[in-house]
Amino acid sequence: MHKPLVVLALAAGSMALAADDTPAGPATLADILAASIDTDWRTPDPADTLYLDLDGGRVIIELAPDFAPRHVANIRHLARRRYWDGLAIVRVQENYVVQWGDPEAESPERRRSLGEADRHLPAEFAVPASRVPFTPLPDGDVYAPEVGWSQGFPVARDGAGAENLAWLAHCYGAVGAGRDDAPDSSNGSELYVVIGHSPRHLDRNITLVGRVLQGMEVLGALPRGRGAMGFYESAGERIPIRSVRLAADLPDSERVPLQVLRTDTETFKRLVEARRNRREEWFVHRAGRIELCNVPVPVRLKPQDRDVAGEDG
Amino acid sequence: MHKPLVVLALAAGSMALAADDTPAGPATLADILAASIDTDWRTPDPADTLYLDLDGGRVIIELAPDFAPRHVANIRHLARRRYWDGLAIVRVQENYVVQWGDPEAESPERRRSLGEADRHLPAEFAVPASRVPFTPLPDGDVYAPEVGWSQGFPVARDGAGAENLAWLAHCYGAVGAGRDDAPDSSNGSELYVVIGHSPRHLDRNITLVGRVLQGMEVLGALPRGRGAMGFYESAGERIPIRSVRLAADLPDSERVPLQVLRTDTETFKRLVEARRNRREEWFVHRAGRIELCNVPVPVRLKPQDRDVAGEDG
Repeated sequence: MHKPLVVLALAAGSMALAADDTPAGPATLADILAASIDTDWRTPDPADTLYLDLDGGRVIIELAPDFAPRHVANIRHLARRRYWDGLAIVRVQENYVVQWGDPEAESPERRRSLGEADRHLPAEFAVPASRVPFTPLPDGDVYAPEVGWSQGFPVARDGAGAENLAWLAHCYGAVGAGRDDAPDSSNGSELYVVIGHSPRHLDRNITLVGRVLQGMEVLGALPRGRGAMGFYESAGERIPIRSVRLAADLPDSERVPLQVLRTDTETFKRLVEARRNRREEWFVHRAGRIELCNVPVPVRLKPQDRDVAGEDG
Repeated sequence: MHKPLVVLALAAGSMALAADDTPAGPATLADILAASIDTDWRTPDPADTLYLDLDGGRVIIELAPDFAPRHVANIRHLARRRYWDGLAIVRVQENYVVQWGDPEAESPERRRSLGEADRHLPAEFAVPASRVPFTPLPDGDVYAPEVGWSQGFPVARDGAGAENLAWLAHCYGAVGAGRDDAPDSSNGSELYVVIGHSPRHLDRNITLVGRVLQGMEVLGALPRGRGAMGFYESAGERIPIRSVRLAADLPDSERVPLQVLRTDTETFKRLVEARRNRREEWFVHRAGRIELCNVPVPVRLKPQDRDVAGEDG
């Protein structure tokens, strides 16, 4: 059995503490991950895995086709036609979002062709709750009657009943499709990532398409735009996009072998408990509760690939 | 009467929307601020106002002596002896904190003298609720029975009863005093600012001393440290501190005339309502609720000073 060797990123929540503490006791997050077994982890579908490459590093996104199938189809199409290559991050707003797309999107003459993706999509703000799995978090939520996880994504639901809906929650790390005033005006060509305190009031107002698995530190440290809403004021300030690719469109050797902890496992249940009641010595007050967006859903490199990489080195 | 001309910073929450929307209707945040009157605003005490100057810009902090009197006394002392000048930001952890202090703090030979502040302080994690004013937010909270504001600071309380306590909440923008494992091991010389999703599980585990009024974008865009817990791995990566000063120690002409919206006013009540139910045309779903750390407490330049500045130009 391979032990997990490296936890790459905690797309939500924080792994470390405020001072120079040392984890102690058996039930810390690190210990729980160390005791996890291979079947606790899943490998995201390469057709749902997007690499956003900037000069500063790579951002890896897992798309959520169960929640936004039409937007995900458009995004796959745009990645395949290399739509975003050479376009730019156009907006970085402190405590809010990083956003990228075509700076000339508003100009019919100068904007880049979207190919088959050139259509406004119906809003995909929520889906019937019965269509997606759900692992509840018992601690309540300010914004929704129920919250929890569906296949690794933080989600909210509006409660029991025939009309029960589920939607991806605007937690830190969420990826969404920018739109204009009309709800059906997005097409997936302009994407944003939440980089600050989770703006949950956006839930059910805009289509979320996935979440960042790795590379939040690349986005979070970008210079803030000084224009309205954090848009860069000049072309020279924009952050160029080297490329955006689907993992499925790359040879195996160029894919990053990430795995995500399954949120329907006993291991994840233990993890949530360890974050509700922190056992690390540093903590003197255990909250006994946790908010949805403060729970990390861990991501790691697949252990055997780590081993192979080790042998190569 | 002076109309408020500029809102400088919303230390929590976000002012703008996800797409290129235009505010419309009478009850947006911008409209409410435009209709505010001078008595809705207060000027923080210069003895409670700290300027952290970095090459990248100025960060202005309001200290909260009602919640952490001994830590604030130490911080004032340290600012007066120019303790932090030439020291550094030593840690920037994505979705967590920026932290500064003496990189040599652990070395008895090399560390900088703290003067009278060289003493561990009793933890100031909470105060009797009866000692501080309180404006409640009615929407509940995952972590505490009651939340709201006290003189502009987001706070939580543990409910009614003789033993009722109140504490500053770890919202985005909160400023705290780093400590070791012992609860009484902080002295205010090592400070941190929350730059990500609000880590409310730290509440009542560490002493908060205030909040950032202006300049979060300076801290949020700093390069992340690649060491454990976001510490910089080499001296060259650290961000030097030009100076830390109390506004009270500067001549009037060098103070920034900031004002903070009073949280015990009808204007603030209207603001909270406008954020619970967003009236801007872009929104199709109104949350009807809001989480404490998503409510902005606006900060502006004092209008007459803006006018004078305008006349000078």
